[in-house]
Amino acid sequence: MTRDERLSRAVWDVLARQGLERLTIRAVAAAAGCTTGLVMHRFPNRRALLRHARDLLHERTRERVERLEAGAATPREALRAVLSQGLALDAETTAESVVWTGFLAAAVADEDLVSLHRANNRAWRERITRLVSAAGLEQGETVALALISLVEGAAALASADPDAYPAPVQQAMLDAVLAAFELR
Amino acid sequence: MTRDERLSRAVWDVLARQGLERLTIRAVAAAAGCTTGLVMHRFPNRRALLRHARDLLHERTRERVERLEAGAATPREALRAVLSQGLALDAETTAESVVWTGFLAAAVADEDLVSLHRANNRAWRERITRLVSAAGLEQGETVALALISLVEGAAALASADPDAYPAPVQQAMLDAVLAAFELR
Repeated sequence: MTRDERLSRAVWDVLARQGLERLTIRAVAAAAGCTTGLVMHRFPNRRALLRHARDLLHERTRERVERLEAGAATPREALRAVLSQGLALDAETTAESVVWTGFLAAAVADEDLVSLHRANNRAWRERITRLVSAAGLEQGETVALALISLVEGAAALASADPDAYPAPVQQAMLDAVLAAFELR
Repeated sequence: MTRDERLSRAVWDVLARQGLERLTIRAVAAAAGCTTGLVMHRFPNRRALLRHARDLLHERTRERVERLEAGAATPREALRAVLSQGLALDAETTAESVVWTGFLAAAVADEDLVSLHRANNRAWRERITRLVSAAGLEQGETVALALISLVEGAAALASADPDAYPAPVQQAMLDAVLAAFELR
């Protein structure tokens, strides 16, 4: 791993495992095994750490989503796979949900972070709206936003309380809503 | 307002308007117009601020929800009203969503805060499950969790990006899902 990769990984791990409250330049330095000066050379302040975490989240999910979409046999299968990866079904996606919640909480009253969120969320909405329409529903946009909200909320609740929202339950919820909308 | 009420209001306002990142004993003292010593007498540390905000959120929503449930003509109307108040439809409920996201982000790796969340969320799940069953659905628990996740996600997304998730759109999403499940 290069030094940049080690720093990047450290930002992610601190936010995902220790949470927003403990995300500091010092904690990142400890996780990366380097000096705070070295962290600050790459990330001059806390907002830079948060922007980086959000960019990582966007890259990770975009790559995964494109692979899933390309590999799906039908539009409905693509929709289900793309939405499912947004749930907190395993350690990796649970960590992503924690990073996302931390970013969202930090973005309050921070126009710079909020703008980043809006741009990324717009791309996500366009993708899901397109998949919902391809899966044969007319009122695509409302349904797309409902599905996005469902996945978002389920991941947040599951990451805070895994026992109450285990993976099969999250998947059953999503399937129940897809079936109710008769998405094929 | 008593001193305690002024402090309580200050904790809420700082978290709802400035966000978790700026929630400090000092910021609360400034908002309440008192000394940091006085804040610390009531809230010895940051976790106490967060616990208090979560308790306030629980009280506010419980009272509102019980009023809405008691005033509803039919089980479906009760379910719709109770779920709707969980969306970020106006300044008050948007503030609640911001407080909630802040709490959730702070609860990561903090067993004390997570326990509080789990207990409150369990009560909410029991209520929605009961209302879904009363509204005539058999597979009540899965649908209840889907509706809870939908409302949770919509409120979080709307509080971060109000233009993309305006109140009528949030309400339309909820209604589309209730209609898809044929809840009467």
